[in-house]
Amino acid sequence: MKLAGLVEYDGTDFSGWAAQPGQRTVEGSLSEALGTILRQPVKLSVAGRTDAGVHASGQVVSFEAETELSPAEVSYKTTAVLPPDVALRRCAPVSHDFDARKSARSRSYEYRVLDGAIRSPLLRRYTSRVPKSLDTGLLDEAAGLVRGTHDFRAFTPSRSYHSYFVRKVTESLWERRGEVLVYRITADAFLYGMVRTLVGTMREVAEGRRSLGDFASLLGGADERSRAGPSAPPQGLTLVRAAYEEQIV
Amino acid sequence: MKLAGLVEYDGTDFSGWAAQPGQRTVEGSLSEALGTILRQPVKLSVAGRTDAGVHASGQVVSFEAETELSPAEVSYKTTAVLPPDVALRRCAPVSHDFDARKSARSRSYEYRVLDGAIRSPLLRRYTSRVPKSLDTGLLDEAAGLVRGTHDFRAFTPSRSYHSYFVRKVTESLWERRGEVLVYRITADAFLYGMVRTLVGTMREVAEGRRSLGDFASLLGGADERSRAGPSAPPQGLTLVRAAYEEQIV
Repeated sequence: MKLAGLVEYDGTDFSGWAAQPGQRTVEGSLSEALGTILRQPVKLSVAGRTDAGVHASGQVVSFEAETELSPAEVSYKTTAVLPPDVALRRCAPVSHDFDARKSARSRSYEYRVLDGAIRSPLLRRYTSRVPKSLDTGLLDEAAGLVRGTHDFRAFTPSRSYHSYFVRKVTESLWERRGEVLVYRITADAFLYGMVRTLVGTMREVAEGRRSLGDFASLLGGADERSRAGPSAPPQGLTLVRAAYEEQIV
Repeated sequence: MKLAGLVEYDGTDFSGWAAQPGQRTVEGSLSEALGTILRQPVKLSVAGRTDAGVHASGQVVSFEAETELSPAEVSYKTTAVLPPDVALRRCAPVSHDFDARKSARSRSYEYRVLDGAIRSPLLRRYTSRVPKSLDTGLLDEAAGLVRGTHDFRAFTPSRSYHSYFVRKVTESLWERRGEVLVYRITADAFLYGMVRTLVGTMREVAEGRRSLGDFASLLGGADERSRAGPSAPPQGLTLVRAAYEEQIV
């Protein structure tokens, strides 16, 4: 049978999602734990391949499993053998042609920023910090420009990783939640490094170091990564949702 | 001059507030950092002496300081030499007779519980977990009984630590915030271990293992700690506020 799983992880101590020899990765830990419980090699498809240090509350995977265990038992038993910073929070049967990556209609990320002179020990693992308060109005104007269908090649570091750079953004906004500024973005798919580069560039707009007009011009398919701003640090970023035609997990 | 400071810490890796030889404590780290910045020995008064593993977002301290630095400079420079899990987030001048402990009108704590079969990697540092969902109605009925003036001797482990056990509770309620159940309690002052023992005992009520009547009888000054429930784990507890006649920091 085919199963889909909802995966949550604290990315702080992982070298990202994708398995790499000699590295501690989420894919490596999860496929090893599933292999132990299911007593078979497990190959995972995943909604979003997150980078080193990036978190997930709503990552989705799919995999084949020949087992007598119920989906709830698979998630419970697998989580029991996973390290504390990753969990398979739910599991559900899906149709044979479901694929966590190919079937995803959209992905949603949140990026959290603490804008202030003094750091916060309780927020430090899941936010990045900028040393002075940001102009939320300018941030949100910039975020509004991101909505729609654009060529995002200026916001990914490498030409070789992707061959097609157009993505459709359906949600892009900043909101203040207490002390923290949260950027939320939903798109059909993302380029490598795209959210963090958007955040780094919008920060320059909010600080008056880049005009809204310049930011808009980058969304027109500017061909040089060097024209966009720097990549914001990974610990502020969380994959919060992958959406499918039906509610899966 | 006398200064008050707002202190935030992640208690995970501290042996609590109070300085102890050979232990890593918040008081020890903070007085050392202030001593470095102010170039004088610093003696701290504190609103709430938190236990090992307990966090604070709203701890208040006061201390004497002979310095040319502004209060904002004191907080900024001190935080720069503190370890990542503690910060002096604000500082303000107060009258000479202000004392963070003696002048406090009330303290507020929050205790966070994740009630579910599967653990959450992203919540794990600041919540404790119980393996099945709790009856929020029963929890909140129990919490309601805590409001008012009671003799809390059944909720502290030692007769020797305190000589007077009556405390006045002005706020005591459970609410669900997303996945997490949050207990919030405000009182004039707290006995050692009081919040965690209240939480451990209310959990027994919510699980049907103790009646509301029995819980009420403990609030009447029951003389045996052994009659109350176990202490809930420290990582769920955060000191969120200390209140004074005026807004201090």
